Amino acid sequence: MIEDAALRIEGGAVVWLGREQDLQPGPDAPELDAQGAVAVPGFVDPHTHLVWAGVRREEFVARLAGEQYDGGGITTTVAATRAATAEELFVLAAARGRRMIANGTTTVEIKTGYGLTPTDELKCLDVIGRLAKDLPWLVEATYLGAHVVPPGRDRAEYVEEVIATIPAAAAAGATWADVFCDEGVFTIDETRRILQAAQDAGLGTRLHAEEIAHTGAADLAAEMGCASADHLEHVTAEGAHAMAAAGVVGVLLPTVTLSLRTFAFGQYQVLREAGVPLALSTDCNPGTSWCESMPYVVQLACLVYGMPVHEALWSATRGAAMALQLRDVGRLSPKARGDVALLNAEHEADVVARLGAPGCLATIVRGQVWQNPAAPSVSA
Amino acid sequence: MIEDAALRIEGGAVVWLGREQDLQPGPDAPELDAQGAVAVPGFVDPHTHLVWAGVRREEFVARLAGEQYDGGGITTTVAATRAATAEELFVLAAARGRRMIANGTTTVEIKTGYGLTPTDELKCLDVIGRLAKDLPWLVEATYLGAHVVPPGRDRAEYVEEVIATIPAAAAAGATWADVFCDEGVFTIDETRRILQAAQDAGLGTRLHAEEIAHTGAADLAAEMGCASADHLEHVTAEGAHAMAAAGVVGVLLPTVTLSLRTFAFGQYQVLREAGVPLALSTDCNPGTSWCESMPYVVQLACLVYGMPVHEALWSATRGAAMALQLRDVGRLSPKARGDVALLNAEHEADVVARLGAPGCLATIVRGQVWQNPAAPSVSA
Repeated sequence: MIEDAALRIEGGAVVWLGREQDLQPGPDAPELDAQGAVAVPGFVDPHTHLVWAGVRREEFVARLAGEQYDGGGITTTVAATRAATAEELFVLAAARGRRMIANGTTTVEIKTGYGLTPTDELKCLDVIGRLAKDLPWLVEATYLGAHVVPPGRDRAEYVEEVIATIPAAAAAGATWADVFCDEGVFTIDETRRILQAAQDAGLGTRLHAEEIAHTGAADLAAEMGCASADHLEHVTAEGAHAMAAAGVVGVLLPTVTLSLRTFAFGQYQVLREAGVPLALSTDCNPGTSWCESMPYVVQLACLVYGMPVHEALWSATRGAAMALQLRDVGRLSPKARGDVALLNAEHEADVVARLGAPGCLATIVRGQVWQNPAAPSVSA
Repeated sequence: MIEDAALRIEGGAVVWLGREQDLQPGPDAPELDAQGAVAVPGFVDPHTHLVWAGVRREEFVARLAGEQYDGGGITTTVAATRAATAEELFVLAAARGRRMIANGTTTVEIKTGYGLTPTDELKCLDVIGRLAKDLPWLVEATYLGAHVVPPGRDRAEYVEEVIATIPAAAAAGATWADVFCDEGVFTIDETRRILQAAQDAGLGTRLHAEEIAHTGAADLAAEMGCASADHLEHVTAEGAHAMAAAGVVGVLLPTVTLSLRTFAFGQYQVLREAGVPLALSTDCNPGTSWCESMPYVVQLACLVYGMPVHEALWSATRGAAMALQLRDVGRLSPKARGDVALLNAEHEADVVARLGAPGCLATIVRGQVWQNPAAPSVSA
């Protein structure tokens, strides 16, 4: 932490960072006084399902009342997403995206996975492409055809269809492929085939792993050289060591664990002791984590995992950038993108010591203060 | 829940509530379009320690890293609060209070308890009186001289001093007395004597009970007819039944349990099964819960207790008003105060289904839209 810090951004990139007293005169440019607020790199959110239609409030509330979550609720969203046009999906996702940017997120990974036919998955990739173009953030697009086997489909046939769709997904802008490898979803063998096909097509790979049960998905992520394995509530020390040895980033999604009410937060220590680099993410989705705030995730991670604040901030920026294999975001050193979140906090510790999520005073994207054109307000 | 609802406030009080289509023409008055947002009674926060000086960020962060919380940190705040003038304390507490109102709180209970000498406790009551006068909310003042035995004091002597100060506290505006009755703090017998003296002086009584260990404080609250017993992590079914029979409201403080990382959320079911009316509160304090947001508490209660949304909203409004024995707040029926929180939520379920705390679009106090004069902002 640098106190009384100043930062210079030119041409959208950081050119200097240090103590304000050491700032040299430079070219004329707008100055922003952060008024003592804590500045961190713009948040990197490495695991979201931002493109969806429909609402699942009732399911969420029912689950809190004690019903078991078996992933079946995804099919509700699939039906609504198939019925929606690309324009409708864009409007919904862009509103969520603007709120995310207002909360300091400047880089985001967005998955498909609610289309589950080649046509509908490619429609979602088109929406993701437009989200990358029309909003000022950096977007990484992930093909998640293997989110769940759609109802009424033969699973072997569906796996073949997912594999056959990979080249078109890559052509439509996907640079990543992901598989929900878990009990009741895709098996280790099915997942290995899909990941191999994705890698053969030049895509990077990542996994939903060890969320519902321990299946060995973490070991598979290590075996296949995935960039990240995400969720990991049921990871073992063996799986964690395999991830560490292979350089697989562990993406923790504390809001999901909280909303599923399992209080299974122990994976943090297992992964940390194994030396796995950790990232944090919202997992923004309509069923288990309609969350658009990385500051909320950072605070929650400190509380539920006992994660130190500086580590949580690192995981929400640099660690998350590593999960996406990006070098120029998630840090504020020279040549990094000029993306900054100004937190409503006077001190790093206030990120967690002020319960209720600190929120952002401002988000700076490539050197520009971002204005939310759709901030809600009422007046008499 | 009334859909497409309208509400008429006249002279600071609710005069009509119903479907907008049934609204009759009335006297000219400003109209506020809630634009589909959920309107609830202004939140009632029945347990806060709002008057303090100094910061305890380091203690908070250290505790997350695994240190045990033994209440000793209170003395840090006591030293800073004694050193501060009433004016300094007012400025600090008023800033917190304005943020609370921005988050929808329109009625608040505020305790002393960081002075712990007669002079400093009365200074804090003066500050609470000014918070009641200068901010537009309704304030209930509580004398908590029995927060902890100050370091260096003989405990029997200190209990006598607390008892001797009660009449002056009542004269300085306190209408309630509270005791931290727990292991390592005040015993059942000491607490009974203090509560009896408070009741003899005409004060209502409430208790910090069963937080650190099971001591029988819930039974004492029932025996003494306290308005509420608060915390209750270690309450037994027997204590809960005693509370229910005596009409003692249980005040739940989920942020504290979360920040202490005990994950001891089971008291909710124990209290609910016994039929105890439940309230929710921030416990706003510098050590375990620097929280100024009732919407955050409501959301967290749903998540950690599995509390239904409508019940959590009831507990944060009507239940909390019951804990303070107030009849005209915490509800929106005719003759209630015209206090309304407009939540940033389109549907009741969004209060919890949108993780990250919904926040408020606007707070209406006695019919007036409240403007925060000190909302933070930065601009280029």
